[in-house]
Amino acid sequence: MTDALIRVVVQQGLDAVSIRAVARAAGVSIGTVQYHFATKDDLLLAAYERAIDQVSARARAVAAQDPAPEAYIRSLLRELLPLDERREAELRVALAFSARSVYSPRLTELYSEGYRALVDAVAGALEQAVARGEAASGVEPRRDATEAVAVADGLAWHRLCAPAVLTATAAETALDAYLARLLPPR
Amino acid sequence: MTDALIRVVVQQGLDAVSIRAVARAAGVSIGTVQYHFATKDDLLLAAYERAIDQVSARARAVAAQDPAPEAYIRSLLRELLPLDERREAELRVALAFSARSVYSPRLTELYSEGYRALVDAVAGALEQAVARGEAASGVEPRRDATEAVAVADGLAWHRLCAPAVLTATAAETALDAYLARLLPPR
Repeated sequence: MTDALIRVVVQQGLDAVSIRAVARAAGVSIGTVQYHFATKDDLLLAAYERAIDQVSARARAVAAQDPAPEAYIRSLLRELLPLDERREAELRVALAFSARSVYSPRLTELYSEGYRALVDAVAGALEQAVARGEAASGVEPRRDATEAVAVADGLAWHRLCAPAVLTATAAETALDAYLARLLPPR
Repeated sequence: MTDALIRVVVQQGLDAVSIRAVARAAGVSIGTVQYHFATKDDLLLAAYERAIDQVSARARAVAAQDPAPEAYIRSLLRELLPLDERREAELRVALAFSARSVYSPRLTELYSEGYRALVDAVAGALEQAVARGEAASGVEPRRDATEAVAVADGLAWHRLCAPAVLTATAAETALDAYLARLLPPR
């Protein structure tokens, strides 16, 4: 049922999300949807949790390969850019979710958790890079992790919402140039 | 009436925006609102145009003081951060608008225009900085303008949606650190 819900968010947007629309997309009764999700916020929480779970699973898969800090950060941040259908779908869910989260403490809490985990992961890798002498001079892991996640999410937002102005290639190039300044190739 | 509309978006979010809600907030009849705005997209277009007009007016006011490129870029990008009530209201409108714009070519067009104008303004100032020898080595105005606008919008998004994780001070510090790397203080 969460799959059907995500299809509705991705294809039609936040405004289209309703108990009725999800029931139709999932081919189940309205009562069945209501049994699992009492409100629209419950629906969005489920969709966003799924997106976070997917991003986290991929982050763990990257970490399991024990990459150098630079490669790890690059992989994490590229996951945020809508460079294929899967990541674009996740970003659509994230944008819809975050826009609504401003008006819901429960949604704010979940969004903040995901954001904090991402910044922590990047900051940890930056600390390693500094310890290994792989970071540019003056890098401050916490501050620059905040900045790096902002670059990636900002590019993702602009690519999704102004696709004729920001091409996929330009978004990738900008992210790579940013990372090269932070963690210069040797 | 646009003021009342913006109040509804800012205080209650996109979901609450309706012809009826705006009529109530403006103290006019539903027919009066419908005369000006036929659809919800018309309402959002009006709210976003107002926000863009305000940001553009402030950008012109900054430019009229003929600041150095670094000061101009800093002023422009700080306008995007929700550091006071006015900028937070504009950001709420922008986030709601952009989330919906994914599903509407008319909204995409307006969002893209505003985004393009901002990147152009930053790229122009970066070109000046390069010509005056004030930019870091390797700065490419167009690519790095894309990056700079992404940093500011990304920080704005995270500050609005994860305020307990990203403080206003941390958002400002990250933006300043980013700009200092691009346009090193002398």
